[in-house]
Amino acid sequence: MRISELSQRSGVPVPSIKFYLREGLLHRGELTSPNQARYDESHLNRLRLVSALTEVGGLSVAGARDVLQAIDSDEPNLDDLMGVTLKAVQPFTGAPEPTEAELAEADALTERHNWYVHPDSPLRAELARVLSALHSTGLAPDWEWIDDYARAADAVAHRDHDYVGNFTELDEILKTVVVGTVLGERLLATLRRVAQASEAHRRYGI
Amino acid sequence: MRISELSQRSGVPVPSIKFYLREGLLHRGELTSPNQARYDESHLNRLRLVSALTEVGGLSVAGARDVLQAIDSDEPNLDDLMGVTLKAVQPFTGAPEPTEAELAEADALTERHNWYVHPDSPLRAELARVLSALHSTGLAPDWEWIDDYARAADAVAHRDHDYVGNFTELDEILKTVVVGTVLGERLLATLRRVAQASEAHRRYGI
Repeated sequence: MRISELSQRSGVPVPSIKFYLREGLLHRGELTSPNQARYDESHLNRLRLVSALTEVGGLSVAGARDVLQAIDSDEPNLDDLMGVTLKAVQPFTGAPEPTEAELAEADALTERHNWYVHPDSPLRAELARVLSALHSTGLAPDWEWIDDYARAADAVAHRDHDYVGNFTELDEILKTVVVGTVLGERLLATLRRVAQASEAHRRYGI
Repeated sequence: MRISELSQRSGVPVPSIKFYLREGLLHRGELTSPNQARYDESHLNRLRLVSALTEVGGLSVAGARDVLQAIDSDEPNLDDLMGVTLKAVQPFTGAPEPTEAELAEADALTERHNWYVHPDSPLRAELARVLSALHSTGLAPDWEWIDDYARAADAVAHRDHDYVGNFTELDEILKTVVVGTVLGERLLATLRRVAQASEAHRRYGI
């Protein structure tokens, strides 16, 4: 198909498609003349993935490119891919390094839920920072509240792994992990807001 | 206290404090000379809230200011506050309006979970867009997966409302709702990543 049809079927404007081609998020089409290329279903699928990651997942174009390059790599590696994906999804900026006491709080929480977190993992520092921020507001929710959140997170994480276990092709697994990380986070956040609004309506009539 | 002590105790650099004062995120101190002001615990608490919302919650300075202005308003209103907060938390940009079919999918999901969502609520459109993005990637998770996410979201939303119910002062309630929305979302996302990484370690040794 020509670029105009690709645009129509994907819902992505032609200038954006050209931008993605230049930036390496979309592979080139087959040249049919010096100024014209032919695109196929693989381009359509890739464009849908790019849209999902950037428009709904909230990744920057640079973040999406890094993630897609990790998927496309000749020797893809789940560890590297998760590192790149976590960096692309709303990274912390400017937050101070957590203190030893803050890290100890994070460790106590992960131990309580039988989670394994590598001591050097950026997730450990991230968790410590979120807990510390919650406390610093002076409206520190109690640990019971936090533990309920942890149980909900544990339930969806198990579900995610069961889901990924359905796939056997590495390419599919990698795509599923990325989509699940980026869009799953967005889905969970949106569902939580919907449930909160609904509960507010039920309790207070607002 | 002087601005240097305020900086030291809050961990916020002096130039950032001056910026927050100019931008109206922090109320002015009491002038002790034309060039010097005295600050108190209320400034320290506010700075901690600003840091929590921007550094860990990921709000822009403009987003944090809008949220804080809604809290500070003479006639604060929970509905307005939630609107401002949801707009400040990672808003969708550039995502197309959902189609009728996509809205119908979102409605079916909310009905299945006995949630009430106003037909004009931006949350309804947001949910439709996330579901549509998930489908468009060609790795559409099944409804069982999505329903498990919805159940986890429902559990934490109930918990949040129980928690807010502990407070009686309107000012505290509003602050708790904002902190809960912004940081609670961040906490849940971080816990999910930790749980996923832990489960990956358990299943695959990575």
